[in-house]
Amino acid sequence: MQRTHYCGELTEKIIGQTVTLQGWVQKRRDLGGLIFIDLRDRSGIVQTVFNPDFSKEALEIAESIRSEFVIEVYGKVVEREEKQKNDKLLTGSIEVHVENIQIINEAKTPPFIIEDETDVNEEIRLKYRYLDLRRPQLAKVFKMRSDITKTVRNFLDGEGFLEVETPILTKSTPEGARDYLVPSRVHDGQFYALPQSPQLFKQMLMVSGFDRYYQIARCFRDEDLRADRQPEFTQIDMEMSFMTIEGIIELNERLMKRVMKDVKGIDIETPFKRLPYDEAMSRFGSDKPDTRFAMELQDVSEVVKDSSFKVFAGAVESGGQVKAINVKGSANSYSRKDIDALGEFAARYGAKGLAWLKVDAEGLKGPIAKFFEGEAAEELVKLLDAQEGDLLLFVADKKSVVADALGALRLKLGKDLNLIDETKFNFLWVTEWPLFEYDEEEGRYYAAHHPFTMPADVEGLVSNPSAVKAQAYDLVLNGYELGGGSLRIYKRDVQEKMFKALGFTEEEAREQFGFLLDAFDYGTPPHGGIAFGLDRIVMLLSGSTNLRDTIAFPKTASASDLLTEAPSEVDPTQLNELGISIQSK
Amino acid sequence: MQRTHYCGELTEKIIGQTVTLQGWVQKRRDLGGLIFIDLRDRSGIVQTVFNPDFSKEALEIAESIRSEFVIEVYGKVVEREEKQKNDKLLTGSIEVHVENIQIINEAKTPPFIIEDETDVNEEIRLKYRYLDLRRPQLAKVFKMRSDITKTVRNFLDGEGFLEVETPILTKSTPEGARDYLVPSRVHDGQFYALPQSPQLFKQMLMVSGFDRYYQIARCFRDEDLRADRQPEFTQIDMEMSFMTIEGIIELNERLMKRVMKDVKGIDIETPFKRLPYDEAMSRFGSDKPDTRFAMELQDVSEVVKDSSFKVFAGAVESGGQVKAINVKGSANSYSRKDIDALGEFAARYGAKGLAWLKVDAEGLKGPIAKFFEGEAAEELVKLLDAQEGDLLLFVADKKSVVADALGALRLKLGKDLNLIDETKFNFLWVTEWPLFEYDEEEGRYYAAHHPFTMPADVEGLVSNPSAVKAQAYDLVLNGYELGGGSLRIYKRDVQEKMFKALGFTEEEAREQFGFLLDAFDYGTPPHGGIAFGLDRIVMLLSGSTNLRDTIAFPKTASASDLLTEAPSEVDPTQLNELGISIQSK
Repeated sequence: MQRTHYCGELTEKIIGQTVTLQGWVQKRRDLGGLIFIDLRDRSGIVQTVFNPDFSKEALEIAESIRSEFVIEVYGKVVEREEKQKNDKLLTGSIEVHVENIQIINEAKTPPFIIEDETDVNEEIRLKYRYLDLRRPQLAKVFKMRSDITKTVRNFLDGEGFLEVETPILTKSTPEGARDYLVPSRVHDGQFYALPQSPQLFKQMLMVSGFDRYYQIARCFRDEDLRADRQPEFTQIDMEMSFMTIEGIIELNERLMKRVMKDVKGIDIETPFKRLPYDEAMSRFGSDKPDTRFAMELQDVSEVVKDSSFKVFAGAVESGGQVKAINVKGSANSYSRKDIDALGEFAARYGAKGLAWLKVDAEGLKGPIAKFFEGEAAEELVKLLDAQEGDLLLFVADKKSVVADALGALRLKLGKDLNLIDETKFNFLWVTEWPLFEYDEEEGRYYAAHHPFTMPADVEGLVSNPSAVKAQAYDLVLNGYELGGGSLRIYKRDVQEKMFKALGFTEEEAREQFGFLLDAFDYGTPPHGGIAFGLDRIVMLLSGSTNLRDTIAFPKTASASDLLTEAPSEVDPTQLNELGISIQSK
Repeated sequence: MQRTHYCGELTEKIIGQTVTLQGWVQKRRDLGGLIFIDLRDRSGIVQTVFNPDFSKEALEIAESIRSEFVIEVYGKVVEREEKQKNDKLLTGSIEVHVENIQIINEAKTPPFIIEDETDVNEEIRLKYRYLDLRRPQLAKVFKMRSDITKTVRNFLDGEGFLEVETPILTKSTPEGARDYLVPSRVHDGQFYALPQSPQLFKQMLMVSGFDRYYQIARCFRDEDLRADRQPEFTQIDMEMSFMTIEGIIELNERLMKRVMKDVKGIDIETPFKRLPYDEAMSRFGSDKPDTRFAMELQDVSEVVKDSSFKVFAGAVESGGQVKAINVKGSANSYSRKDIDALGEFAARYGAKGLAWLKVDAEGLKGPIAKFFEGEAAEELVKLLDAQEGDLLLFVADKKSVVADALGALRLKLGKDLNLIDETKFNFLWVTEWPLFEYDEEEGRYYAAHHPFTMPADVEGLVSNPSAVKAQAYDLVLNGYELGGGSLRIYKRDVQEKMFKALGFTEEEAREQFGFLLDAFDYGTPPHGGIAFGLDRIVMLLSGSTNLRDTIAFPKTASASDLLTEAPSEVDPTQLNELGISIQSK
């Protein structure tokens, strides 16, 4: 028989019709000689009723039915009695009186009940992923994922973008993380690499005059699994020619507005706020600040640098700084022990200590209060907008440690104290990134973004690399980086200067990127783009906190069912060696 | 400056407007103190005019401009004089009088001219792929590719399909071809495999109740490169629950109808014709017949089996057959030498010889005519609908060789004799496939499709495997297989019988497919699906004959720029060994 309706489609509108449904048994209840079966398919659940008056045979068959059986029922849609109506169910005002039933497939008792709320551990859920995905809550995530990509595609298509597939078996290009390598059987001793991003291919497409490219692109990084990281992930990847930063930002704001509207039904305001990187680090201690709450970092170095508190004065003297956050109204709720715990938390981010002050009616209190009296105390109070009942937390260290520790502390306190409005979606552009990061151990510069990013100042590439800003931008949502992009270098001489600044010899640059440099010789348009992490967007928009819940078949930490044993004719020890040998440069 | 229009958008409607254009110099012509530059972007070409009356400075700059420079021009859209109008160009009735020009990027003389018609060899075109893709004809293929996937997505979305991404780093499952293997750094000595298809994942999604799944999925086969084969390729992959073969066929006919309408503007007729596999092999000698012309294979075994021509009689006697094609009206145009060449061609497909007869006013002529006189001749003439001027070609051998040789010959003659109407799009379902192929060398059965295909007769799996048909279907277009699919096994006992028929021990089946067998235990719905080769669809619909022209960055036969050298700290000889060692089982 052909299904006539999905379970979730049955409403009062089709009362009186006969329907054929196919789905899974959610629950069976026997009651006074009748049997009630909640039938589930991907659209929802509907109550079916077996009654000897409708069909004796169907009732008999229904008696043998257990949860998760696959069945087909044929019957009439009938309005429930008023008191039987169930407001919680979309189909709660009707039921199906079954005249015919067929068992399509049986089911053993599943290892966990198929319900939204489950306390079964994730390992079991992942082992039986095909059952886990039956849970309506999880299935909804994949509906949302599909809806997001649909909206993105429709939007970009309307803006003249062409979807182009770029290779997955490709050449290795240094992009930061380790590449997966794939031995080629045809070309002995050589490997394909799996792409960390389609960066160079999309730039080639701009050289080709494709003008606007996008792809929902699979990318790969051979890194250890973490809760928030999978070895393969999906990017919404785009590139445009003849565009300014303003143009790219404006287009992507419209894209996000559309996604939020179509998928969440929420109107978000554009343009989004923007923060230069330096300001984000300074005010929030983070390059992806969660701006749904304040508690900003305040620089108190000027006030404390001449104090007799050696820890503070010394930090400033040696080129570091002292910053503080004001935990409003928390002086009394945080005991000494609680604050010690915060200190231990800050220590994980490199802070050697966490100093604190409480504000009471008489002024500053706490072990270091004695160092700040009179004018210094007044200035601190003023700078930190401190009022009675506030808790002030200080970190003194070099700039990066202060930012990391206080930034992390701010986020933790924001969550602990429920300062975050979970209904808010704070989109934020972080701009004016540094072009380079300096690696002190290796004594050389690395590209903060990637080596194809356009510098704001070409001359500075040679004269003062550490000061040069990148024409780059990240989009941040509620403290998560959704994606990032930049204008790209499109002139050969600039790209050559860039490679030089990164320590490549001319020969190395030519060997690794000769095809790119050559391409610049044949009429390359100005271009730029952006890439968003789709998995993370799905996670944030679905309200999930587990990245694996956004991926149909995620990798697990165990070397279990997703890995292939070594081919049988190969000596395992040799392969073991290989497994170790193939390391990134 | 911001671009105001694409070049190709400039028509008579905007005469009088000033525009800003950005693009590539297609051609520069100097004429009587004026300069004409054809400016190209992805939308088309427009003529721009530099004249001292419009701007002296612009004219001066224009003098330094060469082909493929990237420029920006600002000027007024003006109607061309009547005799200057160019019907061949969409923008041929107007031109742009340039008031301002900026050179955005320069270009060296490209290694070949960027034009539709190019006689440069493919190796050069692929080396400079970014220039090759500038050719409007090739760029159009990628527009079509993007349009096809857009239509497919919109159609399937409208039919309730959910787009789900399945893993690319996955477990190896035997699917016929060799897997690419990816060493895992985290799990020593173990490998991921790249999927040859998402088959098992999509079946898992059906077990999960996703009901309708699709994906434009990248797939991989570690095989030698061929003109019509790339190691990575793209499938339009779908799977549906609770569907009959009729339902799947009907849905896909509507899909193809929509694609043909949206992409080619052609209304094709549905339902498509259907041929059982046996009939396709018998009438066309092919499981993917090109039905745009007749010249069908005729079985003449009954007529010739008692003849005194030993080759024919012997073939039939030893269980083979004799078949013929009638090459209408070609008796006089094929010399003995020509026919010998056809014989050599047939020999490539295993035919030991090609017998022939010509028909003239008096009857059959040719070396073997003497064996067929009187009644036999009449019967041959009748069976083959032979008329004066026809050429009859015969192959006598075992069934498979007769089909291969005459099928190939039929195709060759169809092309050589221009019998094929190239404007036709003959869609055709080939159905009722055999479930197994018997490997005579290994003395065992292989799954003709894959081991998850539903047999038409479960009991036959054990009693008479070679006679069992698969519930499978291929879609053929103009002699090419566009894709294929089947209903799948959804009961554990049937799947176990299938594995047994394929020679798996219980333990082997459990080891390799335990997760699938387990899944069948928890309520698996009936399901089936299909997968189409996107690259081939693009090739056929774009009228290209080169599969590589449908792929933005195809692999080349050379171990050149797409392969990574072995990581430097690994001993190359060891890697060489590895390159050889990693062979499929």
